[in-house]
Amino acid sequence: MSDFAFDTVIHGGTVVTATDTYRADIGIRDGRIAAVAETLSGGTKRIDATGRLVMPGGIEGHAHIAQESSTKIMTADDYYTGSVSAAFGGNSSFIPFAAQHRGQSLDDVIASYDGRAAPNSVIDYSYHLIVSDPSPEVLAEQLPRAFARGITSFKVFMTYDLLNLGDGGMLDVLTVAKTHGALTMVHAENNDMVKWMNKRLAAKGLTAPKYHAISRPELAEEEAINRAVTLAKLVDAPLFVVHVSTEAGAAIIRRETNAGVKLFAETCPQYLALTRDDLDRPGMEGAKYMCSPPLRDARTQEVLWQHIQSGTFASVSSDHAPYRYDESGKFFNGKDVAYPKISNGMPGIAMRLPWLFSEGVVKGRITANQFVALTSTNCAKVFGMSRKGAIAPGFDADIAIWDPAETRVVTLEDQHDAMDYTPFEGLTVTGWPRTVLNRGDVVIEERELVAERGRGRFVARDTVNLTGRPGYRAPELDPARNFGADIAP
Amino acid sequence: MSDFAFDTVIHGGTVVTATDTYRADIGIRDGRIAAVAETLSGGTKRIDATGRLVMPGGIEGHAHIAQESSTKIMTADDYYTGSVSAAFGGNSSFIPFAAQHRGQSLDDVIASYDGRAAPNSVIDYSYHLIVSDPSPEVLAEQLPRAFARGITSFKVFMTYDLLNLGDGGMLDVLTVAKTHGALTMVHAENNDMVKWMNKRLAAKGLTAPKYHAISRPELAEEEAINRAVTLAKLVDAPLFVVHVSTEAGAAIIRRETNAGVKLFAETCPQYLALTRDDLDRPGMEGAKYMCSPPLRDARTQEVLWQHIQSGTFASVSSDHAPYRYDESGKFFNGKDVAYPKISNGMPGIAMRLPWLFSEGVVKGRITANQFVALTSTNCAKVFGMSRKGAIAPGFDADIAIWDPAETRVVTLEDQHDAMDYTPFEGLTVTGWPRTVLNRGDVVIEERELVAERGRGRFVARDTVNLTGRPGYRAPELDPARNFGADIAP
Amino acid sequence: MSDFAFDTVIHGGTVVTATDTYRADIGIRDGRIAAVAETLSGGTKRIDATGRLVMPGGIEGHAHIAQESSTKIMTADDYYTGSVSAAFGGNSSFIPFAAQHRGQSLDDVIASYDGRAAPNSVIDYSYHLIVSDPSPEVLAEQLPRAFARGITSFKVFMTYDLLNLGDGGMLDVLTVAKTHGALTMVHAENNDMVKWMNKRLAAKGLTAPKYHAISRPELAEEEAINRAVTLAKLVDAPLFVVHVSTEAGAAIIRRETNAGVKLFAETCPQYLALTRDDLDRPGMEGAKYMCSPPLRDARTQEVLWQHIQSGTFASVSSDHAPYRYDESGKFFNGKDVAYPKISNGMPGIAMRLPWLFSEGVVKGRITANQFVALTSTNCAKVFGMSRKGAIAPGFDADIAIWDPAETRVVTLEDQHDAMDYTPFEGLTVTGWPRTVLNRGDVVIEERELVAERGRGRFVARDTVNLTGRPGYRAPELDPARNFGADIAP
Amino acid sequence: MSDFAFDTVIHGGTVVTATDTYRADIGIRDGRIAAVAETLSGGTKRIDATGRLVMPGGIEGHAHIAQESSTKIMTADDYYTGSVSAAFGGNSSFIPFAAQHRGQSLDDVIASYDGRAAPNSVIDYSYHLIVSDPSPEVLAEQLPRAFARGITSFKVFMTYDLLNLGDGGMLDVLTVAKTHGALTMVHAENNDMVKWMNKRLAAKGLTAPKYHAISRPELAEEEAINRAVTLAKLVDAPLFVVHVSTEAGAAIIRRETNAGVKLFAETCPQYLALTRDDLDRPGMEGAKYMCSPPLRDARTQEVLWQHIQSGTFASVSSDHAPYRYDESGKFFNGKDVAYPKISNGMPGIAMRLPWLFSEGVVKGRITANQFVALTSTNCAKVFGMSRKGAIAPGFDADIAIWDPAETRVVTLEDQHDAMDYTPFEGLTVTGWPRTVLNRGDVVIEERELVAERGRGRFVARDTVNLTGRPGYRAPELDPARNFGADIAP
Repeated sequence: MSDFAFDTVIHGGTVVTATDTYRADIGIRDGRIAAVAETLSGGTKRIDATGRLVMPGGIEGHAHIAQESSTKIMTADDYYTGSVSAAFGGNSSFIPFAAQHRGQSLDDVIASYDGRAAPNSVIDYSYHLIVSDPSPEVLAEQLPRAFARGITSFKVFMTYDLLNLGDGGMLDVLTVAKTHGALTMVHAENNDMVKWMNKRLAAKGLTAPKYHAISRPELAEEEAINRAVTLAKLVDAPLFVVHVSTEAGAAIIRRETNAGVKLFAETCPQYLALTRDDLDRPGMEGAKYMCSPPLRDARTQEVLWQHIQSGTFASVSSDHAPYRYDESGKFFNGKDVAYPKISNGMPGIAMRLPWLFSEGVVKGRITANQFVALTSTNCAKVFGMSRKGAIAPGFDADIAIWDPAETRVVTLEDQHDAMDYTPFEGLTVTGWPRTVLNRGDVVIEERELVAERGRGRFVARDTVNLTGRPGYRAPELDPARNFGADIAP
Repeated sequence: MSDFAFDTVIHGGTVVTATDTYRADIGIRDGRIAAVAETLSGGTKRIDATGRLVMPGGIEGHAHIAQESSTKIMTADDYYTGSVSAAFGGNSSFIPFAAQHRGQSLDDVIASYDGRAAPNSVIDYSYHLIVSDPSPEVLAEQLPRAFARGITSFKVFMTYDLLNLGDGGMLDVLTVAKTHGALTMVHAENNDMVKWMNKRLAAKGLTAPKYHAISRPELAEEEAINRAVTLAKLVDAPLFVVHVSTEAGAAIIRRETNAGVKLFAETCPQYLALTRDDLDRPGMEGAKYMCSPPLRDARTQEVLWQHIQSGTFASVSSDHAPYRYDESGKFFNGKDVAYPKISNGMPGIAMRLPWLFSEGVVKGRITANQFVALTSTNCAKVFGMSRKGAIAPGFDADIAIWDPAETRVVTLEDQHDAMDYTPFEGLTVTGWPRTVLNRGDVVIEERELVAERGRGRFVARDTVNLTGRPGYRAPELDPARNFGADIAP
Repeated sequence: MSDFAFDTVIHGGTVVTATDTYRADIGIRDGRIAAVAETLSGGTKRIDATGRLVMPGGIEGHAHIAQESSTKIMTADDYYTGSVSAAFGGNSSFIPFAAQHRGQSLDDVIASYDGRAAPNSVIDYSYHLIVSDPSPEVLAEQLPRAFARGITSFKVFMTYDLLNLGDGGMLDVLTVAKTHGALTMVHAENNDMVKWMNKRLAAKGLTAPKYHAISRPELAEEEAINRAVTLAKLVDAPLFVVHVSTEAGAAIIRRETNAGVKLFAETCPQYLALTRDDLDRPGMEGAKYMCSPPLRDARTQEVLWQHIQSGTFASVSSDHAPYRYDESGKFFNGKDVAYPKISNGMPGIAMRLPWLFSEGVVKGRITANQFVALTSTNCAKVFGMSRKGAIAPGFDADIAIWDPAETRVVTLEDQHDAMDYTPFEGLTVTGWPRTVLNRGDVVIEERELVAERGRGRFVARDTVNLTGRPGYRAPELDPARNFGADIAP
Repeated sequence: MSDFAFDTVIHGGTVVTATDTYRADIGIRDGRIAAVAETLSGGTKRIDATGRLVMPGGIEGHAHIAQESSTKIMTADDYYTGSVSAAFGGNSSFIPFAAQHRGQSLDDVIASYDGRAAPNSVIDYSYHLIVSDPSPEVLAEQLPRAFARGITSFKVFMTYDLLNLGDGGMLDVLTVAKTHGALTMVHAENNDMVKWMNKRLAAKGLTAPKYHAISRPELAEEEAINRAVTLAKLVDAPLFVVHVSTEAGAAIIRRETNAGVKLFAETCPQYLALTRDDLDRPGMEGAKYMCSPPLRDARTQEVLWQHIQSGTFASVSSDHAPYRYDESGKFFNGKDVAYPKISNGMPGIAMRLPWLFSEGVVKGRITANQFVALTSTNCAKVFGMSRKGAIAPGFDADIAIWDPAETRVVTLEDQHDAMDYTPFEGLTVTGWPRTVLNRGDVVIEERELVAERGRGRFVARDTVNLTGRPGYRAPELDPARNFGADIAP
């Protein structure tokens, strides 16, 4: 029967979704999942998943690929190496950033990134815009145009002189996003606090990498998250707080989510796996562990795990920001530079899923279903990839097949990226993806790359759907309290 | 091919699970879901679900069926009328209580309830035991024996003189439950506070039904929930708090869940739909709205909805407690009795799902996926029905087919129970189950009962799996703090 | 004996201090309290206080006197009318602001205000500086010089384009203050939020006075208080938050005070007595009730009272900001102006104490001792007036003699200021000061002014003493966590 | 002049009150303070306090003197040794317990304690009743009679089988107390939790003193405090929680006080000075450190200090419970007994003030004024000793003269009690009382006892005055919500 003519059948595996775990075969046709059944014969290609876990392919929601920093340092990974590394790490798609530098039009930015991604990516992709210059044209025309073509999320910064918008700019973009059903993401650290600390540290000659952690104190993140959430509440717009790294920051997310604010947040493996002590490694080794917000401490790791368990975070993302340790990346200016001159960020797109599976599922901190939710399903929902993130008929056949028992020590070679180090080097990890499909195509087969450069496609994403997440009503704008004037945005 | 020979195929519908919504057909074989696919031909029986929602059948986790109260009043519903009413309300299975009266052995209790349920139920069933007499034999032998045969949850009371265990008894049963992986459920109201209020009200001659609400103040629930959670923390045992009705109670659940305590809770439609003002209806009409804990107020409803949205509650249950308004139920002793003599409880097993769908999903408070989680999937997980609560290969074909657009006014006739009133009478509800299957058998077909009495089967349930919900570690029992003695329960 | 030769004896009254209430006579010599005794005969002058309360004279900690706003509007009250009004209101001293405009040196500012105050004030005075331009000279030299001459507190703004310092400027001044034992006061409202609201309201043509309240939402205060406290925590400096007007703002003060942060705060009678509805009075009458932060609502009043009772606030101050309703004050530009052009602020220096006594003590919300603490003793302690605020030997004879039973309706004539309206007009108030002494001189005698212009003296104040209020230790600066570098400010 | 004829003059000292610190002489006449002045000549007796602090004499609010435990063990101290030890420790008065055993009438209890105290006490005294048997006669007649004669506070227990009242009994006594303006004190530990732990420990043979701490977990105190406060809220009665020893317990006090509940609490020096590690001293030495609630840990000490600083606690009391280490006290049954058979409690009435001064004031944690408030003034106010706790005309001349610089190592000889050990042995303490007066009589003079046995007098205390502490209004009892019936207690 034509119902059962499949291009590919994955058989014998244990399917894990965000909710359930069960034995089933999966039939794929025309790039989509056509059937999930107890047994499926046939299939032009048959993949034996006996003893394996069959999960929705990961969706990487936070990665810097082929992106120039505001100081003109290009990431080591382009869309080829970046997507290959992501795929080796169990991802079927990813959403890097397309960054506006001040003065640029968003249309040009998107066109430029299309040129970087389309010919190169081996997996599906979309972009979060980075908006650094919310001019009237950007607000009135360019952002709505980007939303209309399916780029429905964008990130703004509260730190970095060349990027941060100020609170007024934040209110402007939040309002535009709300009007169009788009999602504002925010890097929340107080810029003045960081600059002030930098000034103090410089005055004392304290410039080793370890002072990077001191220069960006926990209070800077806590303050900025609180401010970002307050701004979002004022205009009743949804907000996504990226890379939460502090106990106080996570507590704000939880408190406001409970109160009905339309709020989402992520944390990253590095905040769970590493500490600021890594910044104090001998010589300049600490530079490898510089990221912003910086690594914290062991107690914070414990608290962040608790928030992962109780549902505070929608996702765990990599914040893959690949700056090589050699001269091209971290050290554009020689060997012994002051920490403010060292590029921030570390790679991790290939390790996000294996590390989280090993430390989370294998060690009993989260269920395999929570793992799928945190790494794929929630990203699909929050970021509007409505045909991804699930194993069910009609969804894209984006699937990762894992060996949950394989144990290996992490090496640089595992990463398949363009970097010269991995911060996860030497860790023992149990549970690795072996085979990864995207729209039914096998991208990685038993840990070998089999996809062609440029096969990945742009994913036009939906607008934000917040049914079931009713928002805070700013009291001052409540018609019953504002003398009858309807001035709500 | 034999893969595709189905007993029944449900075609053309939109499948809604706890996570996803998609168009798919469902193939059923031998009582289980054999395939979920874009299109399935065949099937001995084909059910057209075009324009309908196809959801996991509801699992009612809180119902009093064929149960004598401690004052010897029998519920109006037996396992036939109770299961029929549940099925009309979209449920494929339920877990009523099997109640121990003091002095009874649990083996006798179970045998007795088996005699009530097996010949009568039209849907699958299990029991939560009610333990009122935790004697050494009960603790050491009878409870473990009950767990071993798949009755892995039981309820205890902190109120009612003939039922409540005292804090020491609570610690005993929590410890036994923990040891065996069973789940303790608790009705949390402070018995002394209620009795003291009763005494005061009686002294003032205030005995109308409306004083029932005053006699069981919000503080009585808040206090008892806090105490129950503390007792569970002391022995690090999981706990399920039933019918939470207060803002302060829900806040405790949220606070402690965030802190990692192994805690679950439910609320009920009546606390969202009705208020204590209903207890002040003319004559003795208020008696129809007496339940414990009592109805609260409009502000509480709003807060409870917010907790439903943000995930504080695992489920919404009916607490179906059918005592007729005529002499056999509420009024065993004539027409104008004092509130303490009126049986507590109200019916609602047929309305739980339609009411919650109408007020929750149709009105945009929750998604359809949240609805499925709250009414079916979470109950299956929490109470260990590992083959129910999902639409995926290998799961029992427990399915409810809904018309999401059907709008009707609630009447008593809708209920199909043995009651002479429904507290939901006259409400307009949009979204009704039309057809309900249990293990592949059609129980309700287009709102007609088609199942035979007694076809339902007992479900042996799994022990509690708390992976991903790591518990509080009682500080006093921490080996690092207790002088080295390992005295943890 | 010479011990008992007094210039003045106050006899027959009931002494009320911040702690105790008792019958005693008071002997004054050389401007100071020389004896407090059951009975004192003698005295060149004898004041009969029978039936009266004898309390420490009020210390007004927040008043704008002879101050030009940044838009060059001069307050209606100069140091003569302002001090007279204060004295009629039961105050023996006050601490208005000496405001730096950008570009001015603090030395010039102080000299200028000395010229305004010294020839005019009828009661003792000091200044809080307003710092709007923290240049290197201001930070390194001028502020320390001001502290050294006893001006040990200063206020900064987080709102108003011509005044706010930015977070970096805040950190600079907090650090200088900490180093020298001075106290930073802050007007906390988020400037960008207010400007953004102004822009929206203007775009909709909503410019009546009532929109002033909408333009400065509660969230703007909440956000800014949280930020100010976080900045203070970063450098471990004490902070005083002026005119707290919101529930959320007061909750932050309480939470952080409990956590050991060196934090003080005040609220004002207008936030307890009036609401934003007063801004909607007919015609332009609402302009009389414009102040920043704006008036709120009845629920907020209740919450602020609760915080007063439980000790969240150190003091209740007037924020006397006298802009006349005629052309010279509120309406420099004609009759029907948009709210952003109307001067903010309202008078109240004469009403702070009578209103608070009447609503607080007479209505049983606070004790008379709490009243004294809130209006005098705590101000003396927090602001370093070590010889004021108490009735005990050696303290300045700053005393107010009250008739606690006198009931009158508030009129403009009561105020004795230079204003053409009082927002308290028409309220019935019980309990009024009759006679007020400053350093033993009678300033007001039975509600008649008897002091000469210019008799008041400048009070050099102590540095901040925070014994018993140990501060937050910024974790990032903790030597144990910062790799050994001592970089604490 | 007769104004200045004093029996005693204390000259040259620095007076410290709950609010102020100043140089003054004090004139005493007829047992009362007649004058406080810069200089006082005269006086039949002159006491030179140069270089000394002159403070209100301590009021010990929590001591067990001449009291039989419910297991018939008599305290080592009677009213002679107990009052002498208290006086050496800087106290001018104390309020031990008068304990009802079940079946006894309160009239008999009071008469019995009058017989123990009146002939023996060297300082003024009152009693808190211990009510263990709230029979109808006790509630209706005996308690009101005790209140009428000035015994306006009583303690109840939530633990110990022979003492605890149950929640219903608590509600009864709280209601009687509220009606008469009396104050209910509570020892809050969950009895069932403790008994259950005892049973478990016994079953494992874990009976060394150190297991005492494990048998009474922090959760037992937290739970009981929460319950006691909830019961008090139900009937809107004031409550005083004694010896708070846990972080969670103190947090409840703070939270509910902020919310307006009429709540007071104390902690004790032993919870700040010692830890549960002291229970693990060699041999049976740990028995010396057994008290209930038990000693906790270092982190708790830090948190309790923070609560002392921020005003959570009204007072710091000794809970002096003197059971000798020899056979008469701790070991009635031989040398190596199980911890449940060892009398609970430790001595400390002489060390409360010196220890708190040394660790609090000298080490900069609290001001000397806070010290006076915590040890004297607040006790006078809360417990209704309206003529004590202050240095002002008309108050009893209850005065302690301290040498703030004297440093000594604590020895048993310092204690002047009937005990054979002190848990503070060997600690270095700076700041000691040298001379103590009660109603003008010198009791201790330069660390020598000079008072006669039996000179102390019974103090009839006032009812509770809660002006300024408006209570929680139980929502269920709010007339607006309870259908119009006024059923408030």
